Amino acid sequence: MAGTVTVPGANVPSTPLLKDELDIVIPTIRNLDFLEMWRPFFQPYHLIIVQDGDPTKTIKVPEGFDYELYNRNDINRILGPKASCISFKDSACRCFGYMVSKKKYIYTIDDDCFVAKDPSGKDINALEQHIKNLLSPSTPFFFNTLYDPYREGADFVRGYPFSLREGAHTAVSHGLWLNIPDYDAPTQLVKPKERNERYVDAVMTIPNGTLFPMCGMNLAFDRDLIGPAMYFGLMGDGQPIGRYDDMWAGWCVKVICDHLSLGVKTGLPYIWHSKASNPFVNLKKEYKGIFWQEDIIPFFQNVTIPKECDTVQKCYIYLSGQVKEKLGKIDPYFVKLADAMVTWIEAWDELNPTTAAAANGKAK
Amino acid sequence: MAGTVTVPGANVPSTPLLKDELDIVIPTIRNLDFLEMWRPFFQPYHLIIVQDGDPTKTIKVPEGFDYELYNRNDINRILGPKASCISFKDSACRCFGYMVSKKKYIYTIDDDCFVAKDPSGKDINALEQHIKNLLSPSTPFFFNTLYDPYREGADFVRGYPFSLREGAHTAVSHGLWLNIPDYDAPTQLVKPKERNERYVDAVMTIPNGTLFPMCGMNLAFDRDLIGPAMYFGLMGDGQPIGRYDDMWAGWCVKVICDHLSLGVKTGLPYIWHSKASNPFVNLKKEYKGIFWQEDIIPFFQNVTIPKECDTVQKCYIYLSGQVKEKLGKIDPYFVKLADAMVTWIEAWDELNPTTAAAANGKAK
Repeated sequence: MAGTVTVPGANVPSTPLLKDELDIVIPTIRNLDFLEMWRPFFQPYHLIIVQDGDPTKTIKVPEGFDYELYNRNDINRILGPKASCISFKDSACRCFGYMVSKKKYIYTIDDDCFVAKDPSGKDINALEQHIKNLLSPSTPFFFNTLYDPYREGADFVRGYPFSLREGAHTAVSHGLWLNIPDYDAPTQLVKPKERNERYVDAVMTIPNGTLFPMCGMNLAFDRDLIGPAMYFGLMGDGQPIGRYDDMWAGWCVKVICDHLSLGVKTGLPYIWHSKASNPFVNLKKEYKGIFWQEDIIPFFQNVTIPKECDTVQKCYIYLSGQVKEKLGKIDPYFVKLADAMVTWIEAWDELNPTTAAAANGKAK
Repeated sequence: MAGTVTVPGANVPSTPLLKDELDIVIPTIRNLDFLEMWRPFFQPYHLIIVQDGDPTKTIKVPEGFDYELYNRNDINRILGPKASCISFKDSACRCFGYMVSKKKYIYTIDDDCFVAKDPSGKDINALEQHIKNLLSPSTPFFFNTLYDPYREGADFVRGYPFSLREGAHTAVSHGLWLNIPDYDAPTQLVKPKERNERYVDAVMTIPNGTLFPMCGMNLAFDRDLIGPAMYFGLMGDGQPIGRYDDMWAGWCVKVICDHLSLGVKTGLPYIWHSKASNPFVNLKKEYKGIFWQEDIIPFFQNVTIPKECDTVQKCYIYLSGQVKEKLGKIDPYFVKLADAMVTWIEAWDELNPTTAAAANGKAK
């Protein structure tokens, strides 16, 4: 049974927010310290661990955590032939966890991300900040120069239209990283010693119409609002690229959020990213993506989702068609990816029949 | 003669940046402490003081400053009938200073703004930070989650297209305010005690296509790149509104910067805004603007400047035509304002014949 464990000095809320409405999705756990370190913050919540790679290996979860664990055999059994849309030997497999969750909110975090400290030296409860971000509105239609206007001590500044002050529903909360920044392989190679030491005390909405690089290391979202678009693509084993899983999801998510007038926030909370992955390995995974993204970004900047697409599923299916048509020319990989996007939505709807029915019925 | 005066403990650069390329424009000075407080930072630069209101009054400028001062009689003498475009009894008159300057860069600041301290207790050299902002590129075409990628200790994150990493020329640097936030009258009335105590250690580019509320309290810009669009409109004496001078300039500037692929930054540096203006007086000045901005914002969000407009002047003249046509329906004030926008450009070109010739010749 999960219960609140109070660790002396830790910043644990006495009543954990959204205790029964949020799942924490973790793509494999290679390091047991990870869960021990997060215990005061994560133990009240349900964990979904998606074990990557060899299913015969056993992940030991420390006592006291309430969790379910899926390995590749489970994914194959549950999804059948549709399991082809879930990446293997890549942390992109985590999106299977988004699909099997039955909760409204998801928080996903990598196992090399630890508890960071704020400038006063206090442990940062990342999950609590994500929840605050998701529960308060976003401001995608006009920029507020004092950042999040809903935060204590802040508001909308002079010149901000009153009709826009209710904001939009927040679909995504993108958190940042102290210590090892999320750089691509070329930047890692050029600046091997760079560390992010700047704590920027802000949460902001990424404006409507603006794309951003969404990192999956420290990310929360509202499954009901945007879940079906949180597909981390085809990466890893048998695929020509890696390390673009979260980017791909971010581009799809952002254009759909913009279309549906939903908000995406970035900034607080920080986690402590403990270790840089190998830049040489990363370069091998990334190099096609570095090349392809020069076409992918303009594609997403210019795509216009038709008005009739009034659910995430419909938007996503429309996007998959555009990916096949426009990006398929670059490489056959995108044709395969476009098909996997359709399979993903079919699998999502199969596992989530209630929301699927609502989504499909909405336009009637 | 201006010289560098070293005040013990003050953060004065030994070689002031852009000493001969920047003018500081101040709309009247009601408080002599203002210049004394800024002396270590401002004394190396040339000041342009635009005296508001009664021209028979004398502004005493403390010794050691290199300055020129214009009162209403000077404005009338220099511009003749075109002086009608310069507001009277309103700090909007400051834009006359932008016009008579011969420098590449302008910094403008209100006389109730003092030197702020950073979290370590050190005096913030606002001007130096603005210059850094203006001299480094902006990133308007894609969002960087670690904020300014050109800053020490930061870079572009994974997923940021390499083709966009050169960025765009920076036209505007919008600084913020600690202590009294820049709120409208209704927010001032509702939250009379709110103070901005949050030091957000970030500079960011406002993305292309996104409007923002530009405050003129602590603002720097590149006159060569965007000067002719920095018109603060018709406010104050004889006009139906006030306190929308900087907002108006900001909306025009942003759509022109977006059209010309120029960057606008906001964030650092902070100044200390010492005193809140009277909310009742403000409400009287603002109330029509609060009403009108609900139409003005959609107008600016939807305006498309034609490709042929390849100079700021041409963009601005085009905008003035659109203002007359689209906003003139709301109130005759906008017809008058549209005419004043044309007069402003005529006056600008008259006082700046070299850049005017270049601007007019560019399309040939």
